[in-house]
Amino acid sequence: MPSLADATRGRLLFGGDYNPEQWPESIWPEDVRLMREAGVTTVTVGVFSWAKLEPTPGARDFGWLRRILDLLHEGGIEVCLATPTASPPPWLGELHPGTLPVTAEGTTLSWGSRNQWCPSSADYRRHALGLVDDLAAAFGHHPAVRMWHVGNEYGPVCHCEETADRFRDWLGKRYGTLEAVNAAWGTAFWSQQHATWSTVTPPRAAPYLPNPAQQLDFRRFCSDVLLACFTAERDVLRRHTPELPVTTNFMTLFPHVDCWAFAAEEDVVSLDSYPDPADPRAMVWASLGQDMTRSQARGPWLQMEMAASAVNWRGVNRAKPVDRLRLEAYQAIARGADGLCFFQWRASRSGAEKFHSALLPHAGPDSPQHLAVRTLGAELPLLAEVVGTRVEADVAVVLDWSNWWALEQRGRPSDRVDLAPIALAWHGALWDAHLTADYVHPEADLGGYRMVVVPNLYLAGDAAVDNLTGYVAAGGTLVAGFFTGVADEQDAVRPGGMDERLRALLGVHPLEWRPLDAPAELAGGGTADLWSEDLCLAPGTETVLAFADGTPAATRRGRACYLATLPEPAVLQRLLADAAGRAGAAPALPGLPAGVEAVRRGDLLFLLNHTAEPCELTLPGPHRDLLTARAIARDPAVLHLDPYGVAVLRP
Amino acid sequence: MPSLADATRGRLLFGGDYNPEQWPESIWPEDVRLMREAGVTTVTVGVFSWAKLEPTPGARDFGWLRRILDLLHEGGIEVCLATPTASPPPWLGELHPGTLPVTAEGTTLSWGSRNQWCPSSADYRRHALGLVDDLAAAFGHHPAVRMWHVGNEYGPVCHCEETADRFRDWLGKRYGTLEAVNAAWGTAFWSQQHATWSTVTPPRAAPYLPNPAQQLDFRRFCSDVLLACFTAERDVLRRHTPELPVTTNFMTLFPHVDCWAFAAEEDVVSLDSYPDPADPRAMVWASLGQDMTRSQARGPWLQMEMAASAVNWRGVNRAKPVDRLRLEAYQAIARGADGLCFFQWRASRSGAEKFHSALLPHAGPDSPQHLAVRTLGAELPLLAEVVGTRVEADVAVVLDWSNWWALEQRGRPSDRVDLAPIALAWHGALWDAHLTADYVHPEADLGGYRMVVVPNLYLAGDAAVDNLTGYVAAGGTLVAGFFTGVADEQDAVRPGGMDERLRALLGVHPLEWRPLDAPAELAGGGTADLWSEDLCLAPGTETVLAFADGTPAATRRGRACYLATLPEPAVLQRLLADAAGRAGAAPALPGLPAGVEAVRRGDLLFLLNHTAEPCELTLPGPHRDLLTARAIARDPAVLHLDPYGVAVLRP
Amino acid sequence: MPSLADATRGRLLFGGDYNPEQWPESIWPEDVRLMREAGVTTVTVGVFSWAKLEPTPGARDFGWLRRILDLLHEGGIEVCLATPTASPPPWLGELHPGTLPVTAEGTTLSWGSRNQWCPSSADYRRHALGLVDDLAAAFGHHPAVRMWHVGNEYGPVCHCEETADRFRDWLGKRYGTLEAVNAAWGTAFWSQQHATWSTVTPPRAAPYLPNPAQQLDFRRFCSDVLLACFTAERDVLRRHTPELPVTTNFMTLFPHVDCWAFAAEEDVVSLDSYPDPADPRAMVWASLGQDMTRSQARGPWLQMEMAASAVNWRGVNRAKPVDRLRLEAYQAIARGADGLCFFQWRASRSGAEKFHSALLPHAGPDSPQHLAVRTLGAELPLLAEVVGTRVEADVAVVLDWSNWWALEQRGRPSDRVDLAPIALAWHGALWDAHLTADYVHPEADLGGYRMVVVPNLYLAGDAAVDNLTGYVAAGGTLVAGFFTGVADEQDAVRPGGMDERLRALLGVHPLEWRPLDAPAELAGGGTADLWSEDLCLAPGTETVLAFADGTPAATRRGRACYLATLPEPAVLQRLLADAAGRAGAAPALPGLPAGVEAVRRGDLLFLLNHTAEPCELTLPGPHRDLLTARAIARDPAVLHLDPYGVAVLRP
Repeated sequence: MPSLADATRGRLLFGGDYNPEQWPESIWPEDVRLMREAGVTTVTVGVFSWAKLEPTPGARDFGWLRRILDLLHEGGIEVCLATPTASPPPWLGELHPGTLPVTAEGTTLSWGSRNQWCPSSADYRRHALGLVDDLAAAFGHHPAVRMWHVGNEYGPVCHCEETADRFRDWLGKRYGTLEAVNAAWGTAFWSQQHATWSTVTPPRAAPYLPNPAQQLDFRRFCSDVLLACFTAERDVLRRHTPELPVTTNFMTLFPHVDCWAFAAEEDVVSLDSYPDPADPRAMVWASLGQDMTRSQARGPWLQMEMAASAVNWRGVNRAKPVDRLRLEAYQAIARGADGLCFFQWRASRSGAEKFHSALLPHAGPDSPQHLAVRTLGAELPLLAEVVGTRVEADVAVVLDWSNWWALEQRGRPSDRVDLAPIALAWHGALWDAHLTADYVHPEADLGGYRMVVVPNLYLAGDAAVDNLTGYVAAGGTLVAGFFTGVADEQDAVRPGGMDERLRALLGVHPLEWRPLDAPAELAGGGTADLWSEDLCLAPGTETVLAFADGTPAATRRGRACYLATLPEPAVLQRLLADAAGRAGAAPALPGLPAGVEAVRRGDLLFLLNHTAEPCELTLPGPHRDLLTARAIARDPAVLHLDPYGVAVLRP
Repeated sequence: MPSLADATRGRLLFGGDYNPEQWPESIWPEDVRLMREAGVTTVTVGVFSWAKLEPTPGARDFGWLRRILDLLHEGGIEVCLATPTASPPPWLGELHPGTLPVTAEGTTLSWGSRNQWCPSSADYRRHALGLVDDLAAAFGHHPAVRMWHVGNEYGPVCHCEETADRFRDWLGKRYGTLEAVNAAWGTAFWSQQHATWSTVTPPRAAPYLPNPAQQLDFRRFCSDVLLACFTAERDVLRRHTPELPVTTNFMTLFPHVDCWAFAAEEDVVSLDSYPDPADPRAMVWASLGQDMTRSQARGPWLQMEMAASAVNWRGVNRAKPVDRLRLEAYQAIARGADGLCFFQWRASRSGAEKFHSALLPHAGPDSPQHLAVRTLGAELPLLAEVVGTRVEADVAVVLDWSNWWALEQRGRPSDRVDLAPIALAWHGALWDAHLTADYVHPEADLGGYRMVVVPNLYLAGDAAVDNLTGYVAAGGTLVAGFFTGVADEQDAVRPGGMDERLRALLGVHPLEWRPLDAPAELAGGGTADLWSEDLCLAPGTETVLAFADGTPAATRRGRACYLATLPEPAVLQRLLADAAGRAGAAPALPGLPAGVEAVRRGDLLFLLNHTAEPCELTLPGPHRDLLTARAIARDPAVLHLDPYGVAVLRP
Repeated sequence: MPSLADATRGRLLFGGDYNPEQWPESIWPEDVRLMREAGVTTVTVGVFSWAKLEPTPGARDFGWLRRILDLLHEGGIEVCLATPTASPPPWLGELHPGTLPVTAEGTTLSWGSRNQWCPSSADYRRHALGLVDDLAAAFGHHPAVRMWHVGNEYGPVCHCEETADRFRDWLGKRYGTLEAVNAAWGTAFWSQQHATWSTVTPPRAAPYLPNPAQQLDFRRFCSDVLLACFTAERDVLRRHTPELPVTTNFMTLFPHVDCWAFAAEEDVVSLDSYPDPADPRAMVWASLGQDMTRSQARGPWLQMEMAASAVNWRGVNRAKPVDRLRLEAYQAIARGADGLCFFQWRASRSGAEKFHSALLPHAGPDSPQHLAVRTLGAELPLLAEVVGTRVEADVAVVLDWSNWWALEQRGRPSDRVDLAPIALAWHGALWDAHLTADYVHPEADLGGYRMVVVPNLYLAGDAAVDNLTGYVAAGGTLVAGFFTGVADEQDAVRPGGMDERLRALLGVHPLEWRPLDAPAELAGGGTADLWSEDLCLAPGTETVLAFADGTPAATRRGRACYLATLPEPAVLQRLLADAAGRAGAAPALPGLPAGVEAVRRGDLLFLLNHTAEPCELTLPGPHRDLLTARAIARDPAVLHLDPYGVAVLRP
């Protein structure tokens, strides 16, 4: 199977999306020249080029693409060639209105933006695959082309009749019979029983709370049908170019598709990551996406999109200081990236993203922002030896999309309990404790980890429960968050309100859930938020954290800990660091100050100072900084890091 | 006519909704056993069973229902049998799309939740009544069945063409001619005149402010058409079982149906009440619903639904402490309930309400919450003598649905002025003053009351105005809130801006309305909110409360008082207590501390401590507490009440 | 050409909308009598009378209108006769569903409110023009009729297929070819290229950000198609009565139509103005509308609607103190109005605006509010000599609708940056500096002004850029706000991120936009909000205001100033006053205290005290106050103004 190594070939990739169709051809040579001067190795071409490639139904206009690929190749720039299927041309929606997505309220979404396609539409697939086929035939063996980029940020959802048909097929495969669907969805509640398959539909606008199991299965189906769109294109591409790796781009904490399932079908796992420069904890959010993507890739991955400065889709879009751009770039490499690509090369003059920053901004090639890009492009080759190496982690974090979809439904104990902020809080506590973590599916092999943490696993199927209990039985340390193990695979509440195996493992039985609407005081200082429980503790279970009124907030039974609340960051950090210490998991470097990140990748030690203060770190022996080529000698080996500074050390 | 007494037969009913179709039959015997152990007398079966009873169009599957009724009967549990018409099966919407409700924007609401029926749909009614007919034939004489429960929380609204036809029929009956409709709706404004009946429709999405009189009449129609749905089912049931009482369940301050009109057609008036455990004034809200329901029942009533602990449809759903559950139960009995039923018996594993608490919670029969249920079930028989007795009140509160619908339209002086919070504020002031009040329709006979209060009656028809003026003329004391008497029956502003008879009665003429956007200071301390007026006072009208700038905030002319604002709770309490004192209305017990509720029902005195502190109350002579069987002797007769404690005293 | 002078004929008009069709004819004589007593000269009749005039398709019921016009004429009241086309009768929507507007989501808006017409509908136009034709024939020469009022507050928008056809026609005229449309809209972005005209539509609901240039052109088209509706009616009226002036009514800062284009087609420019009595800066907002309308009228204009007290469409509708009503009336006259009309004469008893105040309120003719109206009506003749005179201004403010539409799209640097509040802030700073300003289109002749200010001109076409640079080259002083000159006529970002001619003129190059999400400190005190920039200053450009960190906030290069932020009011006032001083622009009177407004109109000096304190002003010589007939003698000439007082002085 091809892999990212086929594209990197010993280099860290550097570049971004390039949309030559937005510019007169007379500008193209300047683009290639400026790319070379900026150290660009690779550009992604064609992500939104369908209308240019197929200007009318069935037509093919490939000449411009060949000209720019030739030009790039002459300039030594390699190409990740995209299938343009994320944004059909207007003519497709006119010719086949059934390709347009329909909301749950019945509104058809039109062209004039992007993403206006129904993943279940046979017409869409036929047109998309036809074009991909011809594109692969025409360009798959062009010497500039090194990778395939399929679609873009998969996520469209549709509620149309054709979707209903595909949903029924999917349910038929999952459950076999209509009776089984009725049972799985609990349609005995509120008289929702289906007498025939014909009334089984996607969730649609309804007078009151929808059926949660139907919602859950529809989200599973949506992810699966998008994945089928991806694999259909991938298979066409593979037929033409079995040697070229294929990817599609994920987003951090993106709820629409199950990235575990997608990653299993990709040759290269890649990520679009847009930390908010206005967020003082943006590096925590960024590292979560990096760790998740690395875990899904099971090795090096590709940063497919990032921003050189501001984005344009937040309320107030903060520009990114140049030192923060550099820090963000090295953080991605530290956590496993073998390449850094940006959206986009040259800022668009028109269109909905004309105020998104670019490697070459509106202000031009002499602007400070572009100079920072050039500096980065010049530095990256210094780290070539990192390419292909791995990040090892002692800790694993469980995250599951089915759980996410089940948890965040209407009609639950508290609508303040959403998965993403909880996951982020736990990730932040690990980050603050300087612990590097992998992410794992709840049914993954956990054998290699000293500690597994489960921020929340409200929905825990039998296999997941057995996996977690087996892991602890085999000597592992487990820390599980509140409202875990409540529902089975079909979102039915487990007898007793929590799976009995988990109750036994953790030594707790939550008798009542008591969600919090504001932070509550903890005994010993600090606060906790979101949740509390009336816990019945089994013999041998000890309270390791209590609320001010004495009720248990966190417990431990052997190597299994349970948190019945979400403690504030410092308390959660202490709890997880303590558990990690008992489990034998340690930071990459001892004695790190707050805000300084240390990650080992292969033989290299990355040190990143996310604070506005300089700092000095004592190293375990002499090192050499690959970026400065400076040696840090022993007695003692002290490294100075500038504010927002980076060092990449080889022992 | 049958009545609640036919069901109670000397006992306080205790039980709740039971949905056996959600569980395997193997669990049913355990259910019946646990019910018996918990003291359950009565369960409501079949509220959402349409799809189980009529799995395909016209089919009948009654066997399972017969089996569970037999089982319950063997176990000594009586049944309130429900018609399942609140939630049609999916096949009905597929077979007859016209049965599905349509929003004002034209969106059709689908199955997959509940309530997806158009009250005007002939197809819906034919199917519903056919099933009800067969159900009554099959089970009306089953020995377990003691009452009929029709539909559930009537409220669906539809804007479809069939609704338009029914709306036109209704208007034709109300107004006779199209000219009269045009006049009543004031269609001369903005060129809305209808030339033919065909353009008369429900309010639909429109570019700007809708016609308020059309809106008002549509809400009246919606209530009437729902009532017609109810009476149609009731009549079918009566034909089979003239001896069985029929009810449907109301909700506290539920705007969708005119409960006065519904109550007049019921044999038993029943209430679903879900005070929020997070609300420190939940007992005030609860008592409003209880007083309203008792008034509509003109005697004992039935609590049809309440929650043993948390509900699942608020943002953050607080669990209910067990002492608060007991207090809430006795408050309902004190205020006239002859039975306490809960939603629901056994917590559902699946569906949209699986996180709603139940008598038998997920945590199981050994949980503290279920034990509290059992304790309550064991105590209730001690109060058997209360069954059938009445609560007498000196004070009446006027509340009218037409006024509510007219008041809360767009384009009024202030959108901060809504009826429910104003009604609640006035009710709370009476509660704080320890005064028990009935609720009355504005045209009801007021002769028996010492004082009548009108929190707001913006829309006051001629009959209502004459009723109030006649009441004062006959010696009654009236306290009326701001913005009362402004509009006539058709929401047309009265000449002068306020009905001239009310102006004469109250001695005030509001020359300008001056709604407040924040609380304003009162002379003598305290604040008032929502409203103020430029009042012209007639000779003989005195100012009893003024704003800090001296303008009148409350006035009195003889026995008629007017409040031109909403004073803060303590001030409103003082005003109403003062007026009550002058009118000769007194609390059930003098000298009650704040937060302690005293209600006389029949010969019994209920004392309920809603505070977290114990208290001691001096009684007028010796009493015996029915709950503890303890005597409180004279010299002096002092009763100790625990925090959240209850006593039920017989003199 | 007819003009406002044909209606005023030496008098200040006074009156308002009169809707006799809402009242029985028996009341009409009382109306006319009360109008006479109140000094009313003119009423607007028929604005929403379509259904009364054409009760069924093609019918004509003109008798009632003739009767009221005769009665008004007998009473000496003149009439501004309205075409009733702003609110079609229900039958039009039933007969021609295509006349009903459709939202971008596809929802059809129905009758039952007002404005339910599609501006592109041929059926609508045919019916509307037919009625206008007959109306003009029947009443154009009635002796009471002195002016035509066409439609009402033009603004309806539709997204239907017929609109799409008209939009394509409009684009065809603007761009010639489909290729040019694709280029102008930048459809190369996101694969939006149109292969045929048939896919070119109004913006419709779409999955993500829409095409900004399409949005912009659609708003331009909507304004143009509404203008075509206006001119079509106007042309019919002119054919019948070439001697009668024609107007339609604008609203202050109303985004839906380009008022520059509309004004050019009107004989009289008129304004509906509803300053919020709850807003302490309401007089600033009001004066902006007055200055804008005067500028569009190029001379005297007509206040077509204002409120005697509260409106009914805000959340909390504050009543208007009678002294504030008088102040507001004279402010309009000071700033060029030759007449004051109110919505409406008699408060409606029914309909969506029954709580809107009126000249004759619900409280009746003896109410203080009506007495204030009479006082005003009695005073206005004292100012007769002002009629027809002009207000001269040294300062001009640039405001452009295309820029407004382009600026406020999704996907921009900050969604906190909206045009109206920025324009209001700049206008307020000029008001605080006691500088009277005209408003100008960016391509208008600027030669007569000492200073031109540009609060924002994000979208600046070549002609506008050349106009501004030419103005400075010819000796003018320019002050331009941030984010100006960024986009060209088609909303494409200019190379470099700002037009190079403006960069040269202002001596700045913004390298990064740094929108603010909260106010930032300025060096020397005060704050600024919304925006900041990394500015590269050309040689010779000086920083005249800096942020606390030293970065430039405002710059000057010769007579051209640039503000890279929005300073707080006092700082902005100082900056603009300073620039005005250098440019030789001065207040109407030196030494004015804050909150006192001085405006010269013709020979008269209007002084308006908007504060709650009395004040004394020193005048440059003796004057006589037209309102009091009192002389203010010299040595020194001191004028006393009461709180909220007014003086109108002749030297």
